[in-house]
Order: sequence, then C-alpha cells, then structure tokens
Amino acid sequence: MPDSWVNSAERIGTDLHLDLSGTGSRRAVLIRALRDAVREGRLAPGTRLPPYRSLAADLGLARNTVADAYAELVAEGWLTARQGSGTRVAERVAPPKRPRLPKPAPARPAAPAYNLLQGTPDAASFPRTAWLAAARRALAAAPNEAFGPGDPRGRIELRRALADYLTRARGVRVDAERIVVCSGFAHALRLLFGGSRGAGGGVLRGPFAVESYGLGFHREILESSGVRTVPLGLDEQGARIEELADGARVRGEGPRVRGVLLTPAHQFPTGGPLHASRRAAAVDWARAHGGLILEDDYDGEFRYDREPVGAVQGLDPEHVVYLGSVSKSLSPAVRIGWLVLPEQLVPAVLAAKGEREAWASVLDQLTLAEFIASGQYDRHIRRMRQRYRSRRDRLVAALSEHAPHITATGIAAGLHAVLRLPPGTEASAVKAAAWQGIALEGLAQFRHPAATMPTADGLVVGYSTPAEHAYGAAVDALCRALPPDERYEGGAP
Amino acid sequence: MPDSWVNSAERIGTDLHLDLSGTGSRRAVLIRALRDAVREGRLAPGTRLPPYRSLAADLGLARNTVADAYAELVAEGWLTARQGSGTRVAERVAPPKRPRLPKPAPARPAAPAYNLLQGTPDAASFPRTAWLAAARRALAAAPNEAFGPGDPRGRIELRRALADYLTRARGVRVDAERIVVCSGFAHALRLLFGGSRGAGGGVLRGPFAVESYGLGFHREILESSGVRTVPLGLDEQGARIEELADGARVRGEGPRVRGVLLTPAHQFPTGGPLHASRRAAAVDWARAHGGLILEDDYDGEFRYDREPVGAVQGLDPEHVVYLGSVSKSLSPAVRIGWLVLPEQLVPAVLAAKGEREAWASVLDQLTLAEFIASGQYDRHIRRMRQRYRSRRDRLVAALSEHAPHITATGIAAGLHAVLRLPPGTEASAVKAAAWQGIALEGLAQFRHPAATMPTADGLVVGYSTPAEHAYGAAVDALCRALPPDERYEGGAP
Repeated sequence: MPDSWVNSAERIGTDLHLDLSGTGSRRAVLIRALRDAVREGRLAPGTRLPPYRSLAADLGLARNTVADAYAELVAEGWLTARQGSGTRVAERVAPPKRPRLPKPAPARPAAPAYNLLQGTPDAASFPRTAWLAAARRALAAAPNEAFGPGDPRGRIELRRALADYLTRARGVRVDAERIVVCSGFAHALRLLFGGSRGAGGGVLRGPFAVESYGLGFHREILESSGVRTVPLGLDEQGARIEELADGARVRGEGPRVRGVLLTPAHQFPTGGPLHASRRAAAVDWARAHGGLILEDDYDGEFRYDREPVGAVQGLDPEHVVYLGSVSKSLSPAVRIGWLVLPEQLVPAVLAAKGEREAWASVLDQLTLAEFIASGQYDRHIRRMRQRYRSRRDRLVAALSEHAPHITATGIAAGLHAVLRLPPGTEASAVKAAAWQGIALEGLAQFRHPAATMPTADGLVVGYSTPAEHAYGAAVDALCRALPPDERYEGGAP
Repeated sequence: MPDSWVNSAERIGTDLHLDLSGTGSRRAVLIRALRDAVREGRLAPGTRLPPYRSLAADLGLARNTVADAYAELVAEGWLTARQGSGTRVAERVAPPKRPRLPKPAPARPAAPAYNLLQGTPDAASFPRTAWLAAARRALAAAPNEAFGPGDPRGRIELRRALADYLTRARGVRVDAERIVVCSGFAHALRLLFGGSRGAGGGVLRGPFAVESYGLGFHREILESSGVRTVPLGLDEQGARIEELADGARVRGEGPRVRGVLLTPAHQFPTGGPLHASRRAAAVDWARAHGGLILEDDYDGEFRYDREPVGAVQGLDPEHVVYLGSVSKSLSPAVRIGWLVLPEQLVPAVLAAKGEREAWASVLDQLTLAEFIASGQYDRHIRRMRQRYRSRRDRLVAALSEHAPHITATGIAAGLHAVLRLPPGTEASAVKAAAWQGIALEGLAQFRHPAATMPTADGLVVGYSTPAEHAYGAAVDALCRALPPDERYEGGAP
C-alpha cells in the first residue's frame, strides 16, 4: 500500500469522525461528510482515498452508494480520479481560512424605546385577513399566463383598478395604458433618472428643481444619476414656483431646469399644501418651457380636516408624472408603486424597465388589484385615516397641555407633524429626545445643502410608527424632551 | 349680469350636460362633472361661473355642496376665485389636445401558436393552493415588524430557509448572514455591477469574462454598467477556463479580467456541465489572481439523468458569488432571487441595495420561506422534474422517429434542449419554425459578438413553456420545421 493511502478503517470514520447521522439519503449524508472532512483539512490535499469497496465495507454502506459519492465529489471538484492512481483529494481545495464556527449575529443598534421617525405606517394595522382573502380570490381567478413572464407595464388587472381608484380618490386623469407599475417611489425615480449605467433608466435629464426641504434619499437618487438638484424656496403657500419661472433658471447657474419634483398635497416634511395659484403656476411653467412636474403623492389620501385636494396631474396629464405607492397607505412590505405618465413618456419608461417584469411581484400585483377592486383598500384607508387623525389629535392635545408654546404646524394630514421650535433649539431638542429614548429627526436633516431660504427649527414627528399601546408613552416622553418656554423660564445658556 | 356670466339654468346642466349620475357623494360627482366640463372646453377659460347659490338651486343640491365643490376646484387650480369678480374658470387650463376617447389597446404581436422560447417554466404548474396555504401560515406567524420597513438583506426567515435548502440541495456553503435577497438574477447583476449612476450598485469592476454563448440580456447589464465582457470559448468540457489563466488576460487586450460569469451546472444555452477539472481550475484562477466567479445556478435543480452536481461555490465560498432565483423553479411572477456572497462583499452589496428593502416583496419573502421550510418547495421541484423530464423524453423520442439525423445535445437537464443542425441551416430552420407558428431562437441569438470559437448551428427549444395539452402538437410542428437529412434528400439550394 502506498504511504499516502488512507486506511479507511483506521482513518476514515474513526479519526475523521465522518458524521453519517444527518438527514437525507445515505449517499447525500456520505457526500456531506466527505466534503466537510476535505473542507476542514482532516483529509489533506493529495491524500489518496480508499477504494470505494473498502470504504463501503468499513462503513456498512452499499458499494454503489460510495461509488456514487466519489463520482459526485469528483464532479464537484473536491476529489480527482485518475486511471491507475485512484481517487485523491484535489490539490486545489485550500484549507479553510478559519474554523467553521457559528457566527455571532452582527451587532445592530438597539431599537429606541419610542420610535417617532417619520415614513412608516403603523405596522400592526396591516390588514392580514383581508389581504389573504384578496390573495385567495386573485390567485383563483388569475389566468395561467399570470405565472409566466410579466408585462413590464404591470398586470392589467392592477392598472385598471389603479386607474379607477386614482380617478375617483385623487382626481388623476388616467387610464390603464399610461400607468407603469414599479416596486416603489425610489424605483420610479430610478426608472426616470437611472441613467445608462443603472437599472436601465435615464428617461429624464437634469437639472431638476426640488423643494428646499425634502427627503435627502430622493435627491441622492437624482444626483447619483448625474442630475443636479436645485432647491426652490418654501413659504406659507408652498414651493415658490415663481423661482422656476424667473428666467427659467434658478439662480442663473448652469443649464435650464428641466423639471420640478413637488409634494403638492402635503409638503414633505414641512406640512403645508401647495396653494392653488402655485399649482396652476407650476403647470404654466411646464407648458411654457417644455418642463415636467413630478408629483410625489406620498400621503395624499390622509387628510383629516377636509376631503383631500386632488392631484395636480389632473390639470395637465401631459406635463405631470404622478407618483404613488402603497408604502404609506398599506405597508412598505408590499413593494408596489406606480407612475402615471404623460403619453409620450410611456415607451421610454417601459424601455427602461425592461422586456419583462423584473421587479414588482406579480402575485402582489394581482392581490392588490383585487384588494382595491373589492373596496378593501378604501376601507383600509378610511380606518387608518381615523387612527392617524386620532394620533395627531392626541399629539396636539398633549402639546397644548404640556408645551403650549410649541405647536404642530402644517395641515392636519399625513403620518407626521412638524413641531416648530424656537430658533437655535432644534439640535438640542433632538438630543434631548434621544436621552428620553425617542428616535426622531429635526428639520435640518431634510434641508437641501444648497438651500438659501431661512432655516427653521423643528422636529419631524412620525406619529404612525409606534404600536398603539406605546403611543401615549411616546407622546409623554416627547413632551418631556421639548425645550422650555423661554418667555417664562429663560433659555439654556 | 356681465356678458361672460354663465346662466346656470341655461348652460350648466343643460347645454353642458353636467353628468351628475356617477357614483360617490354629490359633492364628488359635481366636482367630477365640473372638472370634465373645463377639461373638455365646454367651460372656456375665463368663463365666470354662477354664484354657488344659483347653481345649487338649479341642480337641486345643497348650497354647501356646491360651495365645497367650488372650493375644491379652486384648490386644485381649475377655478380661480377673487374678491369681487366671482369664480371663474382658470385661464391656465388648456383645452385638451384631442377628444377624450377610449384608447385602443396598443397592438401587440400575435402570440405564436407554439411557444418554444426558452426561459420560462410551465405557468400552468404554479402551485396555487400550496402557495396560498404557505402565505396563510406565514402571514399568521409574522411579527408586526414584518409590515414595517424591511431589512435590505431580506427576511431572516427566508435567508434561514434558503441557507438550509441550498446547503442540502446544491452543496452551497452558506449561512443566513451571507445571503442577500433580491428581485431576481438581473437585479443581482445590477447590484453587483450597477455603477454609480444606477440602482446604487457598482460593487465589482470589469472586464469580466463570460461564456461565448449566453444570455445577451446579462451581457448588456454588465456592459451598460461600463463593464466590458470578454468571451471564453466553450468545448465539450464547458467553458475554457485556461483562457483566463493564460497570462491572466484574455487575448491580451486592455486591463486584466477581474472575474468570470459561469453557468457550471448546465451551460446556458449549449447544455453541457462544466467539467470537474474546469471547476477546480476556475477556483484556482480566482485564488491566484484575486478574481471572482459568478455562478449562475439558473436551473441547477433540474437534472434528469442523475443527482444534480453541487455548486462550484462549495469549493471556495470566498471566491464565488452564487446566484439563484425562483424564476425557473417556481415562477417569474414571484420576484425573488438571492446572492450568496463572499463575506467581504456583503457590506458593499447591502450598501448598493439601500437602507431598507425597496425591491423584493416582504410578503412573498415570508411566504417563500414557509413554502421552503414546510417541504413544499422540494415537492414542487420533484413534481416539475418529472414533468420536464417527460417533456424532454417526448422531444427526444419524436426526433428519433421523425428527424433521426438531428439530436438533442447536452445533458438531460433544465428546461430547454439544443438541437444541433447541419452547418448553415440554423437561420432557415428558425424561419421554417416561424412558418409553422413556432416561436423559438437559434444559437446565433446567444453568441457573444466578440466570440472567436467556431460557430455552431442549433435551435434552442424551451420545452417547459407550452401548456401540457399543447405540447404534443408543438413537438410535431417542430419536427415538420426541421431541415431534411442531407445525406438522403439533399440540401436546399
């Protein structure tokens, strides 16, 4: 016997502790055991394995089982087999870098005691039962082709249901042919701006005007696509559209602004609606300059003081892209959003999306279509409107009792409120909140780095996020964290 | 009364045919009717509307209803209201470009009678009942936080189920911490290569070697990210890895190749497995040159002549990215795929994906986790393996009966076969198939434009796509379309 020969009785199954106790066929168990032995260096590179007959006898396995296992490991590259030199451990398989120990879970920051970050609906309110019922009906009714490659426009059932809903609830002028389904607002922006190096996008070019306060994440998507963003001022009537119209440049730098991203129903995050005259002015500007309005209708359904104002898109569907999703209305776990496009943009956005649906789950699309068409979506929105309204009312009441010098600004709408603070107190208020175990952001987080309008101090309070039972305590903690009324108590030095 | 005054009794509701018959509140119906009238030019810009009291009386509506509707339309920008001059149609609202007629559905190419295009599983076999049952269990068991913002790594339930399944079924060395969930193979490539202008990706740099025959769509994703693709030759042992090793350049052009995209289990589309020595050589190359192997395991579960060969990734998890999805195994309607990453790449891919799950449906993730963990996924694969195997056998039998000079090459595996054709006959065979109402592609469709290996003529036949009842007729039609045997009948001129 050659010296590199492994005596199977002595080495394999004894010293090597081939673990043959796992689940699966004997063949699979043996393969796994041999792989592990090679991997962990217990069978060194170049080692010759016993003939399969010997190993079979030693381990009490059928010869075929061992021969099969060898063949498999040869096919996978763990072992090599050469005529006349038997089966050996491949030279190439390196010893493991480190022992194969179970890894500790990576450290994640501890969750705050009170989560008042904006942007997320009440996760506990997801309508599990109604959603499952809709899924059952939708999957039963779906034609077989629904389980094949998907139409990049999105399922027709969903586009029809959305067209009906958006016409009815948001005053959008839309039919199914100008809707493109996507996986959310960020995906929509990427389809529009993605550029040649990206998710296939790059339909629009910059620069683009944005509101001076907004989600940095959205600005980053534009900027990472090479689209410069130019901040528009905000006042009590919303975004200062006249800054667009003034010479069709904003502050005279660089090329003409090509479009504007707006949150007309409820300016994010400062909280006002875009005034009627500004809505019309934006459309005028777009028409006069061939510009485009992107209307981010992120929480348009949630208005508590009156019926929601309809979408700007209704004024001119050929100059407005209307963007929405279920992330606030239902759950960000359902990755579905939509673009309602000017007719001429539909082909380019579809081209950016690709030949087949590669993003939004078709099963979720079918389910959402049924969820909307059966009236469950409206019902859910009504329920959540009441819930969020009551949370906003509780916040306002708590403020007027415990911190009457601080008020929630903006309209009674959406899933967040902005608490205006005395000048210069925002940073310390965010810190004070953190000391109380509260996660929230200050207005400064949302300010465009190039904004020139006066800064405002404020806390952005997401009142939808905490669980119902924890909301009262979160509001109490928030009130404790607010800066004192300087008129009576004097400010901190 | 001023001349631009509209007599409501005379004009509104009579000439104007305000359609007050729709569904919804009276207020909503009136708003819609007025919007339509403005939109369609029946109420011209500048026209003064009757005082709300008059219109209310004319239409038999409450005064508040009409006042509210006016206020809404003013807020939306359709109307303007000025002290002393009443309510007018806004000057800015342009007449519609064209009459608002229902649009004809866009022309789509007629579906072929027999769809033998590769790439899609049998849509009729989607396990609707088992999937719904898994969804019910998954949604019942999910914690509330599952309906909040998602972990960009993917749900832990799914990553655990995948880790277990891939270890067991594909020999992948994996734990949940090195899996990142995505919406499919194309998304995975975009995360890896997306570049700064894209979906946030750009983890890897080029050039990258690819197989000389492969999906053009995948090459395009790399190239649109600025990553040059370099074709490797193919022979009976699969991709010629030695072309990588030869001086670590391929044909001496440009910078060093940084990695290679392979389909080791079943070369796509030519159909062979990567030989054991080539598997090991690829790993050797990656180690020696700091290169990376992307292992596209698109149909690894479907092998009909033997147990599937395990993944190359098992040989060296730190130099291989293993990529899979449910698009072939289950359905492309479920937009879920996964990357099993070298540990050091995990943070960069997560950074490319974003702070929250913006892509793969969390509901589908939870359902798939339960579907796998409950054994339904294995059961489905076994069922489909039998079905596809039988389809392949029927195809092979029909060929040996009707076209014995043409054989299906490659291993008995996957969802497609390649029929090798006499040199120079491929293009006419694809045309002849089209005449028979068959959609399929020739090998030329898949050839890298810079490939230098000899061309081969062949038809890529997807046997999974047709409905079960239509499969026999599709195979018959295919046999009729195949070129005759030149040895006996002589070729076409």
